[in-house]
Amino acid sequence: MKTPADIAQRVLGGDLRAAARLMRLVDDGVEDGLLALGEVYKRSRPARSVGVTGSPGTGKSTLIDRLISAYRARGERVGVIAVDPSSALSGGAILGDRLRMQEHALDPGVFVRSLASRGVLGGVSLSTAATLAVFEGLGFERVIVETVGVGQAEVDVARLVEATLVVLAPGLGDDVQALKAGVMEIADLFVVNKSDREGADRTAHEVEAVLRLRPPPSADAEQGPSEPPVLLTSAARGEGIAELLAAIDAFFARLDPSPELARRRRARARLELETMLLAELRLGLAASGPALAEAEQRLAARSSDPSTECRRLLAARGARG
Amino acid sequence: MKTPADIAQRVLGGDLRAAARLMRLVDDGVEDGLLALGEVYKRSRPARSVGVTGSPGTGKSTLIDRLISAYRARGERVGVIAVDPSSALSGGAILGDRLRMQEHALDPGVFVRSLASRGVLGGVSLSTAATLAVFEGLGFERVIVETVGVGQAEVDVARLVEATLVVLAPGLGDDVQALKAGVMEIADLFVVNKSDREGADRTAHEVEAVLRLRPPPSADAEQGPSEPPVLLTSAARGEGIAELLAAIDAFFARLDPSPELARRRRARARLELETMLLAELRLGLAASGPALAEAEQRLAARSSDPSTECRRLLAARGARG
Repeated sequence: MKTPADIAQRVLGGDLRAAARLMRLVDDGVEDGLLALGEVYKRSRPARSVGVTGSPGTGKSTLIDRLISAYRARGERVGVIAVDPSSALSGGAILGDRLRMQEHALDPGVFVRSLASRGVLGGVSLSTAATLAVFEGLGFERVIVETVGVGQAEVDVARLVEATLVVLAPGLGDDVQALKAGVMEIADLFVVNKSDREGADRTAHEVEAVLRLRPPPSADAEQGPSEPPVLLTSAARGEGIAELLAAIDAFFARLDPSPELARRRRARARLELETMLLAELRLGLAASGPALAEAEQRLAARSSDPSTECRRLLAARGARG
Repeated sequence: MKTPADIAQRVLGGDLRAAARLMRLVDDGVEDGLLALGEVYKRSRPARSVGVTGSPGTGKSTLIDRLISAYRARGERVGVIAVDPSSALSGGAILGDRLRMQEHALDPGVFVRSLASRGVLGGVSLSTAATLAVFEGLGFERVIVETVGVGQAEVDVARLVEATLVVLAPGLGDDVQALKAGVMEIADLFVVNKSDREGADRTAHEVEAVLRLRPPPSADAEQGPSEPPVLLTSAARGEGIAELLAAIDAFFARLDPSPELARRRRARARLELETMLLAELRLGLAASGPALAEAEQRLAARSSDPSTECRRLLAARGARG
């Protein structure tokens, strides 16, 4: 496994260890990794990718477990990306509820990768985009990206994936608030999980009510897929999973020939470009070494300003090559 | 208000309209705005800045209202930055609970600015850093930055401000989960709001229990401020606010002569540099025009890869000057 072409070839041949190695090379900003990733990218097709987001306590992970099992039962291979921006600060701690995915740990048709932001530029988005591309290189039919809540990381993920599933649960107190906070715009499907709990029907009706209040799409906008369906599931009991699967299939069936799919692929391309530019920047910054530390000192002392220091660093980089 | 020096002079003289204009110029990436901001930055001192984060429903905004009133009663001027990454998607909708801050709308000693990510590179972090610098240029003694939850945006904000206050409330179902998810590491103070509700004491005890479980700081680490205090408030009833104010004052008193303050100022400088580099990148991308659209098309068709397209765009930019 020497040259970028070798690495790419192994990944495209379905080698999981080569895939894991490629992901690490890209995360570490190793040039050969980026070259291999580019090769993999050009020689593979987009997977059906689904973002799954929701507050802690909605039962997202259990639901994802169920989806994985269902796809596996159909013979499809599934890549899972667990995005956890907050764990940058806790040193990459794995959330307890992720551990349940370990039941798939011995299944070579399931590849789970946990990502934590490393506090570096574009960390999570770059890793997510790269991991998605590697899963596609392996020929995985399905990729599930799990995120928590709705922040910038989730907005970025929504730009990367082809469908976004928003998970709510009754009694968390944040359901309507979450809808207010802009979740409506990224949701292609709503799932009210924990349907066996009191208030689940009411939560579903609230979501539907908010959906009806939305302004109709403007006349010049590309007509997107129709109103997001609202489904009830109890992932813990395995109820409503077949219906959810059917709804996701129906969503993709509608999406397939549409201008909306082309629009989503361009949005993904833009994010991929942005994250790659960020990676270049990050590598440039890291290469600045003492110059960076000196710039920080000058700023902390207010003897200079960010714009001046930024241009100084860029000029030094340009001069170097 | 013509030259960058003029704009900076007005802001430094306390002109609120000039300040609002400067914020817009920077957001729009106008060169003169960036130059004026640099001038303001060099000629002002850091304010006592506090990040306030917590899930929807914890009563953050009411608590911030109380803090504003308390600081105003001491004659201090307060800048408030409301970071709302999700509203990128809802077109910048203002959350209903922010409207309450409008009671301070006629007070020239309070300046509230709502920020939404615009989906552009480094949007929220750049706007937050720039707004903080402008508030400091105006000579405001206090800056409060409100964020929702704990995602990448909150992690970035925690790097910008001098103190971070994490707000919880009983009965939201996500308190312990939130602690798990890395909130511990950014919190300098915990507030359990809605102390009149059942379970508030228990929530406070849970936080304290989790705090006790933390590993002791490693021997070679700079000793940071001591264990974060856990306070109970009822912002709606105005209870516990004086104690919270005293705790924040005590935190800053401990921070002031410490190596930890120097560390935090360097962390802020690094973030300021990163966001400014992002802004430069963003301007470069925007200037790429048709080249960018063509790159996206090639990626969507998989006839190229992000790394190749990124280098092509950077080379074109370098060639242009």
